[in-house]
Amino acid sequence: MEDGEEREWGAKAWTYLSSVRSLSPLIQCITNFVSMDLTANTLLSAGASPAMLHSPNESPDFTPQVNALYINVGTLSDNWLPAMELAAQLASKLNKPWVLDPVAAGASRFRLKACLDLISLKPTVIRGNASEIIALAKASFPSTKGVDSSHDSTDAVEAAKSLANSSGAVVAVSGAVDFVTDGNRIVGARNGVSMMQKITATGCAVTALIAAFVATDPSHAMEATASALAVFGVAGELGMETARGPASLRTHLIDSLHGLDQTAVISGVKITAI
Amino acid sequence: MEDGEEREWGAKAWTYLSSVRSLSPLIQCITNFVSMDLTANTLLSAGASPAMLHSPNESPDFTPQVNALYINVGTLSDNWLPAMELAAQLASKLNKPWVLDPVAAGASRFRLKACLDLISLKPTVIRGNASEIIALAKASFPSTKGVDSSHDSTDAVEAAKSLANSSGAVVAVSGAVDFVTDGNRIVGARNGVSMMQKITATGCAVTALIAAFVATDPSHAMEATASALAVFGVAGELGMETARGPASLRTHLIDSLHGLDQTAVISGVKITAI
Amino acid sequence: MEDGEEREWGAKAWTYLSSVRSLSPLIQCITNFVSMDLTANTLLSAGASPAMLHSPNESPDFTPQVNALYINVGTLSDNWLPAMELAAQLASKLNKPWVLDPVAAGASRFRLKACLDLISLKPTVIRGNASEIIALAKASFPSTKGVDSSHDSTDAVEAAKSLANSSGAVVAVSGAVDFVTDGNRIVGARNGVSMMQKITATGCAVTALIAAFVATDPSHAMEATASALAVFGVAGELGMETARGPASLRTHLIDSLHGLDQTAVISGVKITAI
Repeated sequence: MEDGEEREWGAKAWTYLSSVRSLSPLIQCITNFVSMDLTANTLLSAGASPAMLHSPNESPDFTPQVNALYINVGTLSDNWLPAMELAAQLASKLNKPWVLDPVAAGASRFRLKACLDLISLKPTVIRGNASEIIALAKASFPSTKGVDSSHDSTDAVEAAKSLANSSGAVVAVSGAVDFVTDGNRIVGARNGVSMMQKITATGCAVTALIAAFVATDPSHAMEATASALAVFGVAGELGMETARGPASLRTHLIDSLHGLDQTAVISGVKITAI
Repeated sequence: MEDGEEREWGAKAWTYLSSVRSLSPLIQCITNFVSMDLTANTLLSAGASPAMLHSPNESPDFTPQVNALYINVGTLSDNWLPAMELAAQLASKLNKPWVLDPVAAGASRFRLKACLDLISLKPTVIRGNASEIIALAKASFPSTKGVDSSHDSTDAVEAAKSLANSSGAVVAVSGAVDFVTDGNRIVGARNGVSMMQKITATGCAVTALIAAFVATDPSHAMEATASALAVFGVAGELGMETARGPASLRTHLIDSLHGLDQTAVISGVKITAI
Repeated sequence: MEDGEEREWGAKAWTYLSSVRSLSPLIQCITNFVSMDLTANTLLSAGASPAMLHSPNESPDFTPQVNALYINVGTLSDNWLPAMELAAQLASKLNKPWVLDPVAAGASRFRLKACLDLISLKPTVIRGNASEIIALAKASFPSTKGVDSSHDSTDAVEAAKSLANSSGAVVAVSGAVDFVTDGNRIVGARNGVSMMQKITATGCAVTALIAAFVATDPSHAMEATASALAVFGVAGELGMETARGPASLRTHLIDSLHGLDQTAVISGVKITAI
């Protein structure tokens, strides 16, 4: 029975990936300096069209042209925050989906407040690791260690449901199992390999991929989010078959994402309701 | 006869690449965050010496030391624009070649105006995709979709000639065929593989390579530009032989550019007058 | 006898690498845009935990949580300099080790002064190429060509000793042989391959690795610094065995760093007193 559910999710995930490839959604990315290269290459290899435009001078003209917005606070500074807020406001006003990656949300008071302010602008999806989601749900400093997760994602399920309910966003928690919730339902995706955590910005990249998937079907953000997480994980699993370490895994992961076919997705995706 | 012309261009391109390797021109790069890594590695693998220095506090001391300047507006913001303008003014005043990559020129009024202002500072070469060159020639917003080209490069030939004549720059339009014009003559370079478009910043990287080639022979910017485009394309073709997707192509392309020998360049370069 | 000394250093280097893997020190990195990706991946593959947080709004909360601070002035601008200075002040005050990479120190008056100001904030280690260390010891503009070294590292030994004595920092000079001095003792590390210079940001990455090694043993910064330089070089040597050019070397270097075992380190490290 679980097999039937997994195959159904696999078919769904394949439909999303196929839509990204055929529609090539334009994704505005306001993201951190570390992740820009991998994020753009992830979107391109999945078939989407990335655009790293962040200036408040441009968003009023540009955000109306995009299919989704992706905001990541990784290398946050006070002169980038207004740009993030403006683009998020525009996306919300224009009913375009937007996705938030609250990197290291609990690392400082400034960052925590910035993330909470962005969440008040109604993101469609929030994806973080367990520590980040717990920090956001607690909304108090201090709570986390740097950018890495010091909690397991299972610890964060209650925090994720709480955050989903208070924010109205779909919330995803990455970990050995990725959890996705709309505050009511929960699904788990069990794809990926642990070495992906040894590659910088894989979390940022998969959040951008979520934006691309959601762009093709904004009214089913939870399904699109779980599918993106699982598809990226399947690409990692295939990449791991020939990887010799984190750097070759990064190369093979992107190659695999570009080359994924229907059989690999349907048989590889491991999503189930929880 | 075309074969003879192609071999002549191949010999010319090999001379340029050899000059870059022996002279190691110092190229000041003021470029977007996404492309910095690939751009620096492209220049290094070709034998040039990249320097990513952008601050207006430094250009008065530093630009006089460089052999060429490369400006790319990819992740433009209002606090980087004055830095670009100052460096361009210095290069023009010092008679040093400078090359502009007008990424997504038509994405916003702000960006279009910034590009036109930079063009008034007399770049030696402008390289863009068809949409960007058409946007610059039309000089009106809106006209293009994000950073990708929604026009074929053949559509942009007239726009390129017009822009070359109005600006005094050599103008290159990238596409399935790359066109280069000084407003009068046109040459076409038919190297490269389509998967290069699935790697972020290959356009930015080849524009930097143009700057390195032009640095070795500023009085023949058109020949140097066509040669750089073709040599980068040949490296991509060789890289494609063992690539399994866009990420391994990126690796093999840079390895190939570093290892290119005289035979590969002379037999591989496909440039002809049009 | 030299063999015995080398094996002793090899054992020491292995101890440092093992400590990084087991302690996973959190390293705050305020570094240039070009190097962020490679720097983060180098730290992750060595077992450390990188955090690219630079805002002055965050350092008062965040720097107290880290095990070491890494500052690199590569893409310096006047709005990043106060962030660097604040973090350095915090690290010094909190007795946390911090490491400076004075990229292109002699490229402009602004940059030279910025580096000298940072050095007055008591870095634990300074690592540069010969030109950079000579520029800092001379403290006068002009003196160097761009970001590359136009001097051999042996020329810089006297400059390094002088800088070590005036600053109180351990000073490392990268080159065909890497020299490390505390102003009194000098050791040389003879690992690495020349093609590493054709990969952008390898110098930046190894400086970050120094920060991770020093974080595990701040009271022996000279030993930790020499060990980090040698270990990174051994990873490069192993990577070179299967590399076909600079891009595949970059991949193999990071894979090798991740996979290094005791035998490879102890037999590979070539450090001797001079």
